[in-house]
Amino acid sequence: MHFTSEHRLDDGTLEREFTLGEIPGILWTPESASASAPAPLILLSPPPIGLRKAYPLLAARARHAAADGFVTATIELPGRGDRPRLPAVEQAVTELRRALEAGRPVSGEIIDALILPLVDKAVPEWQAALDALLSLPEIGGPVGYSGGVISIGTRLAVVEPRLSAAVLFAGSFVPQAIFEEAREVTIPLHVLLQWDDEGNDRQAALALFDAFGSKEKTLNANMGGHVGVPQHAGEAAGRFLIRHMR
Amino acid sequence: MHFTSEHRLDDGTLEREFTLGEIPGILWTPESASASAPAPLILLSPPPIGLRKAYPLLAARARHAAADGFVTATIELPGRGDRPRLPAVEQAVTELRRALEAGRPVSGEIIDALILPLVDKAVPEWQAALDALLSLPEIGGPVGYSGGVISIGTRLAVVEPRLSAAVLFAGSFVPQAIFEEAREVTIPLHVLLQWDDEGNDRQAALALFDAFGSKEKTLNANMGGHVGVPQHAGEAAGRFLIRHMR
Repeated sequence: MHFTSEHRLDDGTLEREFTLGEIPGILWTPESASASAPAPLILLSPPPIGLRKAYPLLAARARHAAADGFVTATIELPGRGDRPRLPAVEQAVTELRRALEAGRPVSGEIIDALILPLVDKAVPEWQAALDALLSLPEIGGPVGYSGGVISIGTRLAVVEPRLSAAVLFAGSFVPQAIFEEAREVTIPLHVLLQWDDEGNDRQAALALFDAFGSKEKTLNANMGGHVGVPQHAGEAAGRFLIRHMR
Repeated sequence: MHFTSEHRLDDGTLEREFTLGEIPGILWTPESASASAPAPLILLSPPPIGLRKAYPLLAARARHAAADGFVTATIELPGRGDRPRLPAVEQAVTELRRALEAGRPVSGEIIDALILPLVDKAVPEWQAALDALLSLPEIGGPVGYSGGVISIGTRLAVVEPRLSAAVLFAGSFVPQAIFEEAREVTIPLHVLLQWDDEGNDRQAALALFDAFGSKEKTLNANMGGHVGVPQHAGEAAGRFLIRHMR
């Protein structure tokens, strides 16, 4: 992990860009975190629009988390931002567009090709990032996860025992294999669903929520489209993380 | 409205039992409410187990609401507690039990007979109670609704323009006619759903949530059965009322 820039936000939060091998990332550390008072960590997975475009959203969440005493870290998804494209996924995106434009249902094959290579590559990267982050003296535990592509969060919650709780956003296509993995998830979950999400299959989202093996799971569904998560729903997700990590 | 008893709870809340005609009820007033500082009002509809049995649950909610500056009032449902039974509803309860014991699906006819007479009778009673309550100098507005039988809350939200927001509990059978009425609801809604509710049809609950015409509505679904609403879900419902009524 190599820090490439740092500056302080007006609330005192230290924002540092870093690279982990070839993967760019950002780390936000509240003033309260130090080697003698290490802070809990939120892994903030970005939406698949590239870190630069997602920055305002991510920075706003990180500032809220810093106010609650959390360190927040994010890394670029495989094939997004300045990272090399994943040709198989690009091909699947093209097929997805064709299907949507033709009004055809999106096949399981397209969904698998779109999501599974991303999950296979992203999850070990998040684990490597977690190794590096937990070696920093100002970061302790526990570790929470919040964000992005729900299949990545699901797989990570299964394979990564250091995760204590996860906020998942039911806003993307879900391969059948991930439904099976969802049954193995046992950590507390808080799932956000935008009821009228134009890019989402509501029944699939509800079925995935049902499939999660966690004894403690909350579905928080609100009106509006993909990017319209209301402020109170974001605050409820924040309270969930505080409840399970402080 | 005739007060029959009063005493102060240890948090200073004044608890008064009353009768409205033949209907018993309870009114909880926080110390902060007065004629010079009238408080907003929450109509707390009880679950259909009778006021006496529901008292611990209702009183706990009223104390939380009092801490947020709300007056809370509840009245006995028709045919419950010491009120005269509704023979048609009793007959429907018998038929419901027979259907459940025989493993037969519960017909629309049984659901209509079970719920619609209760709604027809309860809604005007809540409106009469609201008239009486709003004539008390320590009660101002706005008025919120929270509780009980979701069909009663749905009808009341349609016909009673003084309601500003409602917390509804998706925990009982819903007649087809109520799905139609739900489309006419426009006030902000916060709907609680227990995902594994043994006495509830989850698909019907999700369909009813979808049917509500309100632009602002949240579904908060949690694991567990009918009476297992977690504390954080109750708190989220309280925050919803604060957001829309303070």
